[in-house]
Amino acid sequence: MHADDLILISVDDHLVEPPNVFDNHIPDAYRDRAPRVHRKRDGSDVWLFEGVKIPNIGLNAVAGRPKEEYGVEPTAFDEMRPGCFDVHERIKDMNAGGLLASMNFPSFPGFSGRVFANTEDKGLALAVLQAYNDWHVDEWCAAYPGRFIPMGLPVLWDPELAAAEVRRLAKKGVRSLTFTENPAALGFPSFHSDHWDPLWTALCDEGVVMSIHLGSSGQLAITAPDAPVDVMITLQPMNICMAAADLLWSRVLKQFPDIRIALSEGGTGWIPYFVDRLDRTYNMHHQWTGQDFGGRLPSEVFREHFLTCFIADPVGLALRNEIGIDNIAWECDYPHSDSSWPNAPEELAAVAADVPDTDLAKIGYENAMRWYSFDPFAHRAKEQCTVAALRAESPDHDVSIRSYDKGRFSKQVGADLVDLQAKATA
Amino acid sequence: MHADDLILISVDDHLVEPPNVFDNHIPDAYRDRAPRVHRKRDGSDVWLFEGVKIPNIGLNAVAGRPKEEYGVEPTAFDEMRPGCFDVHERIKDMNAGGLLASMNFPSFPGFSGRVFANTEDKGLALAVLQAYNDWHVDEWCAAYPGRFIPMGLPVLWDPELAAAEVRRLAKKGVRSLTFTENPAALGFPSFHSDHWDPLWTALCDEGVVMSIHLGSSGQLAITAPDAPVDVMITLQPMNICMAAADLLWSRVLKQFPDIRIALSEGGTGWIPYFVDRLDRTYNMHHQWTGQDFGGRLPSEVFREHFLTCFIADPVGLALRNEIGIDNIAWECDYPHSDSSWPNAPEELAAVAADVPDTDLAKIGYENAMRWYSFDPFAHRAKEQCTVAALRAESPDHDVSIRSYDKGRFSKQVGADLVDLQAKATA
Repeated sequence: MHADDLILISVDDHLVEPPNVFDNHIPDAYRDRAPRVHRKRDGSDVWLFEGVKIPNIGLNAVAGRPKEEYGVEPTAFDEMRPGCFDVHERIKDMNAGGLLASMNFPSFPGFSGRVFANTEDKGLALAVLQAYNDWHVDEWCAAYPGRFIPMGLPVLWDPELAAAEVRRLAKKGVRSLTFTENPAALGFPSFHSDHWDPLWTALCDEGVVMSIHLGSSGQLAITAPDAPVDVMITLQPMNICMAAADLLWSRVLKQFPDIRIALSEGGTGWIPYFVDRLDRTYNMHHQWTGQDFGGRLPSEVFREHFLTCFIADPVGLALRNEIGIDNIAWECDYPHSDSSWPNAPEELAAVAADVPDTDLAKIGYENAMRWYSFDPFAHRAKEQCTVAALRAESPDHDVSIRSYDKGRFSKQVGADLVDLQAKATA
Repeated sequence: MHADDLILISVDDHLVEPPNVFDNHIPDAYRDRAPRVHRKRDGSDVWLFEGVKIPNIGLNAVAGRPKEEYGVEPTAFDEMRPGCFDVHERIKDMNAGGLLASMNFPSFPGFSGRVFANTEDKGLALAVLQAYNDWHVDEWCAAYPGRFIPMGLPVLWDPELAAAEVRRLAKKGVRSLTFTENPAALGFPSFHSDHWDPLWTALCDEGVVMSIHLGSSGQLAITAPDAPVDVMITLQPMNICMAAADLLWSRVLKQFPDIRIALSEGGTGWIPYFVDRLDRTYNMHHQWTGQDFGGRLPSEVFREHFLTCFIADPVGLALRNEIGIDNIAWECDYPHSDSSWPNAPEELAAVAADVPDTDLAKIGYENAMRWYSFDPFAHRAKEQCTVAALRAESPDHDVSIRSYDKGRFSKQVGADLVDLQAKATA
């Protein structure tokens, strides 16, 4: 299929929180203690929360930069494309990148909101987390209906509250919860305890997918202190592979047959080997380990529960039927350094040259719609959803690669953002 | 190809050291301090060395047991098949399993001989290590010429001595060195330092392959303390994947273009995804990380240096050309629990049903011969090397599955082994 004709929903992008996240949603009692952006004397922006400075406002938010500069993290809003944190600019970037819809993982709270979980005052923590979720749904996503798959942050520190928040968000249409790939690595009970059962029950009841993003355990695959960074980049998907194995053999899938899990940014090319190894592990060892899936093989169980996600993965596309054609969704990863934005459609069309249109429809948008109960066509005619149609909506949007230059990106910014930036510097 | 007609060299099997390993090779000055087998009152056998008891004589040496008992490690010689530690019995097991030749990793010293490296008296350590290597080459392998690929243990604690030992062993025909998948994890300088350069020089000069076995870093992929063991079994190949990335991006391959590395028991199905991820990491990031392979892609560099090894891996076989048909070797993994001995030929024939005979010849034995400079046909006519021909040499050998029963296995044992066992109990 020609890139122009693709319809693309990305199940893994990222937003950088603008300074006004909490303004409209935090209860007055906690207003003074909500996280706020602070501009340091060196020109960098940090979030301040309960006396802790959280740097790297937009960790790895390098879209639109030359590759030579990928190693230098943006540390201030004006070092990033406004599309990272300004939803109106974001939509233009999505149009220019041919992206119909997008699911946006958080930045400063951590993928599973652990910044809030670390707060001693749990009343404050819950107020802040709910304000974040309300901002995400009611402001960010609601600004452009049908363009964003809403996603909630979890109440990591209390499974009953976590369940209640899932149910509260579900009423607002949220069918995705960002969660950690390994709660044990964050100091919480593992997937093998019954601690999380209230949360799993809520996810199943409400049809909410647990989206676990690569890196959400806070663990990095480091071989040696002096190893070049390329080793770590290459090995990033290992934690997702560990999470998939951890969950597959856990009681979660056995006790909660309706639970569904997305392996966000996990890649797909390793999955056929992985499910084969699951089956071999089962066949060689279940007689002494006692694993029992009611007579089914782990590979069958895997396909019932897991959505796999990839950016550009020729091996995974070639082996799509070994993975499960209904278990694969595409992602753009804007604005991180693994993204090919704004040329992601062309990249996908090239690696998928041999993939039939029906399969590419599943991978490009149909699977994302079904898994996340998300229907962009309720808001926009399907023929207006192609890459070419979207690009035609923002024909003059500047997507040129620009070198890092303080203040340069801010030239693009409209009045709203100037206000935000003024606020950040106040 | 029918299983009967296969010719099979296994590049990854294991031996359990018999009690007499050091008898004929340790200098008199160290004779009293060499490791020795001690039978404990509970009936288990351990190695004693410098006051340390090393249990698990034959870690995971469960060949010939029912799968229900795989979780119970053999702890004494008479709980194992004699083929684990008696070379004459081993040859019968190899014949019955259709195995022309075999490379045998060590057991109690650890895959990289770290038990010896931990010894304070380095004179003793070197004497013991050299005695081990001499026993392996001059007794175990020499007992049946053309049936074993000899392999040396490394002098982990001194790269100059390590180089000298490689050169000494090369004179005896040894073209394989078992090494750790991550020296940094064992407390030594990493693959990124120049510490090991004398060893790499010796390996290149002598045409010796560095064989790094899964698990040789001493690290296990554990997700949580309460995770079922199936998780760890599934994830075992991760450390080999980490080693492959660690070495690929290291200075070793750039500074020592002749170095060759075998990823023993690493599996093959993940390799196409892995080399693709290497290339993507290079393409997306080399401009800021500074990686430079002289204009080549990492995937090309990978195929020049790495031999991949698998037991039964349908995905890897299907993708053999993406891996590199000259970079794949089969393994049996006798006597460990991942092995299908004595039915490994049938297992391979089944998963390789669609693989042309010429490819299967490369995977089954030709690649092993070339990588390890090993020629079994100098000792035996090729038509006598097939699975059927070998099985015909030991037609009455008992390969029935037998339940764990103390003393039961010892009934098979010939006079030599009774002596060994008497010695162990003395």
